[in-house]
Parts: sequence; structure tokens; C-alpha cells
Amino acid sequence: MEKEKTKKQSKISELRQDLVTGDWVVIATGRARRPEDFAASERAIEEDDFGKACVFCHPEETGQEKDVLMYQDQEGDWSLRVFPNKFPAFARSRTPKHFEEGPYFAMDGIGYHEVIVTRDHIKQMALMNPMEVAEVLDAYQERYIDLMNRKSVNYIEIFHNHGKEAGASIKHPHSQLMAIPVVSPYIKGELEGAETYYRSTKECVYCTMNEWECEDQKRVVFENEEFVAFCPFASRAAFEVWVVPKKHKPYFERTNSEEKLACGEALQESLNRIFKALKDPAYNFYIHTAPCDGKDYLHYHWHIEILPHTATWAGFELSTGIEISTIQPEIAAEYLRNIN
Amino acid sequence: MEKEKTKKQSKISELRQDLVTGDWVVIATGRARRPEDFAASERAIEEDDFGKACVFCHPEETGQEKDVLMYQDQEGDWSLRVFPNKFPAFARSRTPKHFEEGPYFAMDGIGYHEVIVTRDHIKQMALMNPMEVAEVLDAYQERYIDLMNRKSVNYIEIFHNHGKEAGASIKHPHSQLMAIPVVSPYIKGELEGAETYYRSTKECVYCTMNEWECEDQKRVVFENEEFVAFCPFASRAAFEVWVVPKKHKPYFERTNSEEKLACGEALQESLNRIFKALKDPAYNFYIHTAPCDGKDYLHYHWHIEILPHTATWAGFELSTGIEISTIQPEIAAEYLRNIN
Repeated sequence: MEKEKTKKQSKISELRQDLVTGDWVVIATGRARRPEDFAASERAIEEDDFGKACVFCHPEETGQEKDVLMYQDQEGDWSLRVFPNKFPAFARSRTPKHFEEGPYFAMDGIGYHEVIVTRDHIKQMALMNPMEVAEVLDAYQERYIDLMNRKSVNYIEIFHNHGKEAGASIKHPHSQLMAIPVVSPYIKGELEGAETYYRSTKECVYCTMNEWECEDQKRVVFENEEFVAFCPFASRAAFEVWVVPKKHKPYFERTNSEEKLACGEALQESLNRIFKALKDPAYNFYIHTAPCDGKDYLHYHWHIEILPHTATWAGFELSTGIEISTIQPEIAAEYLRNIN
Repeated sequence: MEKEKTKKQSKISELRQDLVTGDWVVIATGRARRPEDFAASERAIEEDDFGKACVFCHPEETGQEKDVLMYQDQEGDWSLRVFPNKFPAFARSRTPKHFEEGPYFAMDGIGYHEVIVTRDHIKQMALMNPMEVAEVLDAYQERYIDLMNRKSVNYIEIFHNHGKEAGASIKHPHSQLMAIPVVSPYIKGELEGAETYYRSTKECVYCTMNEWECEDQKRVVFENEEFVAFCPFASRAAFEVWVVPKKHKPYFERTNSEEKLACGEALQESLNRIFKALKDPAYNFYIHTAPCDGKDYLHYHWHIEILPHTATWAGFELSTGIEISTIQPEIAAEYLRNIN
């Protein structure tokens, strides 16, 4: 066992290799701060906090486009709606026009850009109950399945921004979905890494990590029957958490109801612990799943990545793609595990 | 000629492919803002603006480590100093210890982390004259050459953060150098891309871009005999500028005096135009050059990338590595070219 080797606090930093992509991250053990020091500064209550002028509280009155999905509660009031983003990054069109300029290639930015809105203006996902979070996952999946076979859709990105520092321009809790014609470099890196790992070991790299983490426990934040939430060994950011299905599952869209409930619980537990530990920080989470480009990705393993926003990317990160995380994932996980 | 094809303002966005790495970026033409709208909001003058308590104004009195380089002006006063970072991200040690934990690999974070400080507390690089900028480049190069052959140094990252939003924690103008044992994923991507392009075309991909940009002119911000500064076709960020040697040069460290002067002029002109156009925005710039790991990289081409900080990375960017730039590089370049 090599366990004690990660305990040397006197080292300035460690370079840790991401087991999937092979990329390196820096864990700055020497200039590490205490977990408490990462807490967000108190946030002023913003004027719109009671939803008066909120475009997502009354979507039908504020010029949003027609719902593509609506869930209702037992009283018949809406509890969740999905509609096209009013300011989309991609245009709906069937075929992207490709063009060249000198040595360069480009194509029209076509695709689908939707917003997934839960009703309560204040209740962020960290404060929902697991069932409510599972309902959001239901909506993600339903929209995913509707869009995945459309022409020119090769990848569907589902993500959630919370807080201004994480890029949320509207306070009302909402997620976004972008169905696009290209597979992103990060997903490509993970697919290639998973494939390479499989070829050399005959194992799924995510299953290998799951097993190690569940046995070892020191980076585990929460687990249930179906999912494990842990701070990854090569964390990109302080307090990063991955929520990963325990069984080998390449495709998010094939998650069944039981798994969705378990995933809802693991995601809610993770977000809630981050909320308490860091005092309502800004964060992003997103789903990484196999592309829907018609190919098989049997050795990939879908999961959710949560990135709390506690630092600013500076020249080194922007130049290298190597992120400097200022707390050891083991210490972050212990703090999240024990918070209440 | 395909020139007119980039003019369609009615499209929502374009996906443009980076000619070097093959990665895609989104240029949001539809929700593009006017160039003026990117200007930084007025910044309050901070208390330390006159340098009273500045650790970099009087490094010898404030517990900095001994200089590894000092330049003096004609009166014998120091004009530039380089010393080890007081809070280094990497420890100085000759051999990194590798270790394993279960399926994972890591190594001690060893290397050199230095700070390059110019004397004037207020005068940022955008406001220096070209000669002063060239002196900073001299220091970069001198430190690079001293460190490049040391044991376990395989890449030397040189970067400059300006403004709090770009990660500068100290206001006094300074650059940083990190000499590290691993080659970063971004550099790897560029090396592989340049190699692939060379194999299929027998041309350097950066030389190809230079030629197109200099002939086409619409993305050129500034050029002189030796260097061209342009907004890249597949810009990652609004008002991004690359400063690239016109001749094929893989290695920054082999830049001669004449080239350094020309580079100083092109860098200063670019920074100064960004300063005026965006009203002193936060920005990062960094040098991308061939690794110093003992291998040859004859098909690479060193350059400087400048990334003004005008937006927050949100879930989409963090999840995909695909950045959404909200102004067309052609419009940004025209604005920078014509500002005065």
C-alpha cells in the first residue's frame, strides 16, 4: 500500500497524472490553504431575489419561446420547463454549411440550445431534495433522447452554472443543453484515454477508479448502491467532485429510473456538502457521456463533474491547460464527507 | 477568394477549426457585441497604487529571495530583477520522486518558479516603450537559457498576468517563469498538430497562417519586418492576439537581438492597442515555444499569445474546452488596428 506517501505536507506540490487523459495537474500541497479558507465571501442579496422581474419565473410573459417540455406537480402547476434559449449560441437548422477561407475551415454554428428551469426562484439544486434533483435528471434525459438522433447532432452537452463567478447570468436556477455537430476536445481526450486504457488492461478506466476509490475511501464524499461521489486523484480544481455510476455504463441516456434516483441523491448530497463547506460558492457541473454520432463507445463511462469556483485561472493555466489546485483532494473529500 | 463569406452577420455563430490542433471554437457572430462594449469598467485606484507597501518595489526589504538576474540603467539603479517566487508552485530539487497509489501515478512537483519584475510600480507593459519591452524579453531569454538544460526541466513556461481578473495577485507589473518536468497538454496538442500539418503539406502550419494573414490583412493588428500580430481565425477569446515571428523559428531561446527588438515592438503595440480599445482590461500573455527536453521540434514555430479577460468561463467551456468568443476576430482586429 502506498497510502502514507500522499501525506507529506512538507512538499510544495505534486504533479498528478489524470488516469483517463494522461494529462497532468498540479496539487499545491505546500501552499495549501485550510478547507475553511475556501468559503465564498458573504453575498449581498440581490434585488431580484424575490423573482419579481425574473424571466424564468414567468417564462410565458417574458418573451421566452414555447416550451419543448413541461412537468407538473400534483396540483397541476408547472414544476419544470424546458424551452429554447432566447439568446442561443447555435441556430436550429438541419445542415451546417461548411466553408473555407485560405488555409482555414469553418462551418455554421448550428444545433439546439435549450434552458431547463425549475420553478422555485430561490431553491438551488444543492437545497432541493434528491427526488427533485432526480426530476431534473429526468428532464435532461428526456431532452437528450429527443435530440440525439437529429441530423448534425453529434454531441449533447448538458451543464449547470450556479453563481455569477461561474458564468450564470440569471439567478433563477437553470441548466442548459447544447446539441452540437462537433465532439469537444475534452470528450475526445477522455474517449481516447478510455480506449487506450482498455486496450492495455482490458478494464474500463472509470471502473478501475471506482473500485479503488470505494475500497480506499479517503477521497469518497458520498456513495449509495448505484453511484459514488469522490474528489478525483488528479483534481483540476479545489473541491472538485465526480459523481460516477458504479456499474459500467457508457451512455447517460440509458440510465433507468432507479439509477436516476440514486444519481439524484449522490448529486444532491455532493452539491449540498459543497454548499455547506464553501458557504454557497459559485460552481459548474456538467455531464460527460458518449457522443451520439452513431458510433459505439463501449469502453467509455458516463459521469457528472462538479467544479466549484474558488480561484481565477491565470496565465499558467491558460497557457498550459495544467491547473493548479491548492488543496489535496484527500483533504477536500474528508472535509466534505464530515460536514453537516 | 472566400473573403465575403465571413461577413454574414445574420448567422448566430460559426464553428471554426484551429488549424494547428484541429480543435473547434465557437465565434458567436449573432450575439456579437460591438467592440466598444468590451471595455473594462472603471477601476478604483487601489491603496497600494503608489507602491508604499509593495513587495516588488523594494524586494530586498520584503523577504524576497536573492536575485538570479538584475539589469541596471545608466545611473546604476536597477531596472529589472528576477528572483525565485516566494510562494513557488514547484520546489527546487534535482530529481522528482515518482510514486504510485493504486492505479494512479504522480511525481513530486519540482522545478523553478521565478518572478521577473520591472522597476516602475505603475508602468504596465502596455505603457512601456518598445525598448523597455524588449528588455523584458531579454530577461525571459536569459533565464530560459540558464534553466533549459537543468536536470528534470523539460518545459519552461513564461507568462504575464495583468489585473486581478486575470489572476495577478500583486499589482506591480511582473512576469513569471516556471521550469517544469512535464510538457503541458496545450503544447503537446500544438506540437502534434504542427507535425501532422507538416507531414501532409511539407509546410509549417504557423508559416502558412502568417503568409495568409499578411496577404489578407483583415485580421492583422500590427506588423514590422520580423513579426506579425494578428487576431487568430479561431480565436479562443474576444480580442485574442498572437505575436508570431515571420521567419520559421521553433525556439524562442534562439531569438537574436534584432528580432527581440522587433518582437518588443509588436508585443508593445498589441498590448497598447488592447489597453486603449478595452480601457485597461485584465489580460494574460504567454510564450509558446518548443520543449527543452532534448528532442528536436523543427516543425514547431514559437509565438506569444495574448488573452484579454472580458468574459467568465462557464459550464460549456469548462466541460468541453470549446470557448465561445462573442466578437468576430476580423472585427476585433479592425478595431485594434484603427485605435489611437
